[in-house]
Amino acid sequence: MQTVRVELAHAPYDILIGADLLADVRPLLAVLPQKRAAIVTNATVAPLYLARLQAALEAAGVEVLPIVLADGEQYKTGETLNQILDALLTHRFERKSTLLALGGGVIGDMTGFAAAIYQRGVPFIQIPTTLLAQVDSSVGGKTAINHPLGKNMIGAFYQPKLVLADLGTLRSLPAREYSAGLAEVIKYGLIDDLPFFEWLEANMAALMQRDEAALGYAVRRSCENKARIVMADEKEEGVRAWLNLGHTFGHAIEAGLGYGVWLHGEAVAAGMLVAAKASQLLGDLSVQDVARIAALLQAAGLPTQAPTLSFERWLSLMAQDKKVEAGRIRFILLRRLGAAHIGHLDEAVLRQVLA
Amino acid sequence: MQTVRVELAHAPYDILIGADLLADVRPLLAVLPQKRAAIVTNATVAPLYLARLQAALEAAGVEVLPIVLADGEQYKTGETLNQILDALLTHRFERKSTLLALGGGVIGDMTGFAAAIYQRGVPFIQIPTTLLAQVDSSVGGKTAINHPLGKNMIGAFYQPKLVLADLGTLRSLPAREYSAGLAEVIKYGLIDDLPFFEWLEANMAALMQRDEAALGYAVRRSCENKARIVMADEKEEGVRAWLNLGHTFGHAIEAGLGYGVWLHGEAVAAGMLVAAKASQLLGDLSVQDVARIAALLQAAGLPTQAPTLSFERWLSLMAQDKKVEAGRIRFILLRRLGAAHIGHLDEAVLRQVLA
Repeated sequence: MQTVRVELAHAPYDILIGADLLADVRPLLAVLPQKRAAIVTNATVAPLYLARLQAALEAAGVEVLPIVLADGEQYKTGETLNQILDALLTHRFERKSTLLALGGGVIGDMTGFAAAIYQRGVPFIQIPTTLLAQVDSSVGGKTAINHPLGKNMIGAFYQPKLVLADLGTLRSLPAREYSAGLAEVIKYGLIDDLPFFEWLEANMAALMQRDEAALGYAVRRSCENKARIVMADEKEEGVRAWLNLGHTFGHAIEAGLGYGVWLHGEAVAAGMLVAAKASQLLGDLSVQDVARIAALLQAAGLPTQAPTLSFERWLSLMAQDKKVEAGRIRFILLRRLGAAHIGHLDEAVLRQVLA
Repeated sequence: MQTVRVELAHAPYDILIGADLLADVRPLLAVLPQKRAAIVTNATVAPLYLARLQAALEAAGVEVLPIVLADGEQYKTGETLNQILDALLTHRFERKSTLLALGGGVIGDMTGFAAAIYQRGVPFIQIPTTLLAQVDSSVGGKTAINHPLGKNMIGAFYQPKLVLADLGTLRSLPAREYSAGLAEVIKYGLIDDLPFFEWLEANMAALMQRDEAALGYAVRRSCENKARIVMADEKEEGVRAWLNLGHTFGHAIEAGLGYGVWLHGEAVAAGMLVAAKASQLLGDLSVQDVARIAALLQAAGLPTQAPTLSFERWLSLMAQDKKVEAGRIRFILLRRLGAAHIGHLDEAVLRQVLA
């Protein structure tokens, strides 16, 4: 087991990474302030891990309320959030009761947001079961639901008490979801960690085989990258925005096609390549740099071509982005491989890269 | 103008108290990070102050979006919250756009909660126009909406950038609402400030006349009390719970009769007297102490008799309280006048005081 520490002054916590961590609930028990917990999960994950986790907790004397939601980004809504809150209220959950998010990014984001606002805040624990959630969404305290007018528009910064990333849960992950997670892994290399990008180029074949040693390294290095950036800027007032490389374009793809049609990581992959091409037009990346990014995304089984949307539709979808300031969209771009920055793009560049 | 400073490490802010503060928007402008703001208010307050405030802000170059909601505790719901969020999204409000809460406690609580969760948090300013909001709900960062299963069950701790308490707005306040605000003023004397309780006994007649000097003193002293307690315990892990004197019983009254039938302050007044009687049964208050509390509440035009509910109904309503821990309700009681503490009540005592 490896541990990555997220040192936030008001709420430090550990990310535990290892194979078959779910078999041992002692780290969970250590952070429960009360022997009462809800396991929030979805209909896909529940048959795989819920009964085992619930039984282990109950054997340790914890009263467990399972809350099983429908699976998919299209359910990351206010209605589903209310299902969680209604269940907590109906079962008289208290301020020291804990929510456990057992699932992917959607489950983690919704459970974290429910924990942030139930009785003005109760403890929660992330147990990410997808690669995307393990390397990205479960770390850093961003929680949210979608709104018809924009992705992740309603939410809170709210940190978990613990993140438990069981690599064993990735064995059952469908190939498409696994690849979607690799998009965020590649992102860390691109924005701030060229050696990791190069390691990924050398080891993508092993990662695609789900080689456990390679996977353990990739998850830990991703979490270390994320933790470092979150510690520097918890509330996204500066460098944390880098983590949104590809996301302004990606969110537009997801919203434009309808949530759930493209997976988040797929949209981010295509979005990162749009950002790379824009950076090339600005003279910061070479043709070879862009080709390396495209090759690595392709090796990870990811799309590199954004879907066709009219320019006006792109603009309208992106104008809702949370990084908009004074009406201008702030894009995350690349100064070079391994060096992100925040910039603006004029219409001519945008038209060309989105054509 | 008087200033009370709330010194919270991560988010210090000022409470400005004075007559006709709304005539000068410079203090507001000083804390807007962007010349863009929504004024959230209700259909009762809007005709009184909205046009003036909006015009003054617009004259200073601020783009203003007015959001006018229905008036009443019964509208402090998820649906009304969504009205605010939808308006912000439709008008493409950004992370640095500011929400102004112009109204009483319901407007302040809902606007603050909307600010806490819109794009994971945008700035907000409290402009309380009721006595209750000026002395209590606008200070300290508690924001929330009600849920059919309990009052203020969904919310966040989220601090305003500024509180602007214009005493002039209290001139137009209906007598019943004015009295409801006095309940929270009396509360500060009871829990932690015997000299203030005695000052209130001596000056209730002047306060009922809305004498501006007396009112200015009562609002400032109340805000100082609240600020001191909030600074000691922002997230209600200890002494902040004292501020809930009368509220466990009061929330049960409000929920039991239906939100809006009794005003919050009225329910708190009756609830404080139930707590006082329980403290008397425990041997902490004398008959004379309880009589003094009842007399002061009556002088403030407040009810001292809780409505009739069955004992089972009381228990069921109170069991949903946020102060419940390990299934037991924690009550705020009085050790003596001016000294609150947290305790439990056994069934015999509860039956007697609720009969």
